[in-house]
Amino acid sequence: MHGGASLQFAGVPMNLTEADDVVDYVNTGVWSQKAIKEASRYVNVNEVAKAENSIPAPETWRLSPEAKYLHICQNETITGVEYQSAPISDKPIISDFSSTVLSRPINVSDYGVIYAGAQKNIGPAGLAIVVVREDLIGQARSDTPNLMNWQTYNDNESMFNTPATFSWYLAGLVFDWIKEQGGVDAIGEINQRKSKKLYDLIDASDFFYNEVDPSVRSWMNVTFKLKNVDLDAAFLEESKAAGLLSLKGHKAYGGMRASIYNAMPEEGVDALVQFMKNFEAKYA
Amino acid sequence: MHGGASLQFAGVPMNLTEADDVVDYVNTGVWSQKAIKEASRYVNVNEVAKAENSIPAPETWRLSPEAKYLHICQNETITGVEYQSAPISDKPIISDFSSTVLSRPINVSDYGVIYAGAQKNIGPAGLAIVVVREDLIGQARSDTPNLMNWQTYNDNESMFNTPATFSWYLAGLVFDWIKEQGGVDAIGEINQRKSKKLYDLIDASDFFYNEVDPSVRSWMNVTFKLKNVDLDAAFLEESKAAGLLSLKGHKAYGGMRASIYNAMPEEGVDALVQFMKNFEAKYA
Repeated sequence: MHGGASLQFAGVPMNLTEADDVVDYVNTGVWSQKAIKEASRYVNVNEVAKAENSIPAPETWRLSPEAKYLHICQNETITGVEYQSAPISDKPIISDFSSTVLSRPINVSDYGVIYAGAQKNIGPAGLAIVVVREDLIGQARSDTPNLMNWQTYNDNESMFNTPATFSWYLAGLVFDWIKEQGGVDAIGEINQRKSKKLYDLIDASDFFYNEVDPSVRSWMNVTFKLKNVDLDAAFLEESKAAGLLSLKGHKAYGGMRASIYNAMPEEGVDALVQFMKNFEAKYA
Repeated sequence: MHGGASLQFAGVPMNLTEADDVVDYVNTGVWSQKAIKEASRYVNVNEVAKAENSIPAPETWRLSPEAKYLHICQNETITGVEYQSAPISDKPIISDFSSTVLSRPINVSDYGVIYAGAQKNIGPAGLAIVVVREDLIGQARSDTPNLMNWQTYNDNESMFNTPATFSWYLAGLVFDWIKEQGGVDAIGEINQRKSKKLYDLIDASDFFYNEVDPSVRSWMNVTFKLKNVDLDAAFLEESKAAGLLSLKGHKAYGGMRASIYNAMPEEGVDALVQFMKNFEAKYA
């Protein structure tokens, strides 16, 4: 549908709850927090767990028995924390897949709603995909804007109004490309290998480190820091000179971040690994 | 902002009214009616006048003294009815400019809010432009989704979230192109000339006719009908064979429609005029 995934931060509670309902949200970082902040304007949000560099064990989550759904952010881009599979829940799981959709096979039926902005692994920004389990359609509040009501899209094959035609077209080309790579199975293997090359290097190094619990490290956003922060500027300058761009970590987290979405070829990761080895050898 | 103009059908009342307010809407066709239908879910809508092939004289409008705003659809695409200037009102005039934005010079300060989907004269579908008078920002209802609240865009230079980057880029190229043509002044002269060529032919003909009050005929959508509807199929077939496409009128109105947005060169209109003359000579 039109708009970025962020419009769904309001769209999820508007489509699934009434104002006095309770909903469960897991807070694993900035994108979880954005979803919580907006949802809190519409419904009673219970933050079941909070962490920055891990995903707290589900058995520690303070779940609400009456919650209408459980919301997670599948991949947090800033720290690089990613669910490796859906948590187990008897509630519909609503997941923001914006930064990891199509990066690996998933069991769609584990989720009640999957929503994702297009701009990481699908196509141009300005388009969002929302996959809704059929029984969750048709529950929108009466004051939901027609173009935010998932039923409107369901009833009109997503073409109630003029869709974002060019974005759809480009997304179709990307889907074709994914099939040519062997589908999400093959893409998942590539992405796992890409991220493992970086994590293996980081873990073997006394020079770089990663703060994320290894069991939930992202395949899409590999963060790392230099033990000697005085070398950050040199790292960024020399990596840029080597053609390795946009490695600066998010200002809210610091350090470095290699965002290696589907479009980043394995050769790009190999080049970064080699650069990091050389940099460490030079400065360690 | 993200999304089509249709999202603003809800966005306008959400940003400018409370639920018990009254607002005035002029109904000049299908797009007016879509705006009215959606707004009616949020606020008390007073339909001040209704017409299909004209714009009723403003002195006949049944205005509400307490109305928060007056809403019009600047150009109705299906019948080809267009305001030639803003109506006079002491209320903020909110106008859906989707199908006529940038087609001629306008006095922006006549309007409280101008909103427009991109896909006619700006760029790819999926982007909307909203121009809001400063004093009308900051009045949104408390339950307005953050990404539908105009203040969010105002506070963040329209980049609260990732904007529709490629659509922006293409829109920028279109704006450059408009400047190269001499700006909207020059574009307006071209558009007036283009539409006049067609209306002059239609009015001079006993074979074609147009049902719209001449004082409010659209420069963007020139509708016409054949007096002998049995010739409609031949007209469409032969015009298509001549490379003149998409001339079939909207199914809700019938007849023919030449949508001659900015991107249609004058030569295209000249070719249509010549075809219509030939067709009339052949079949009259």
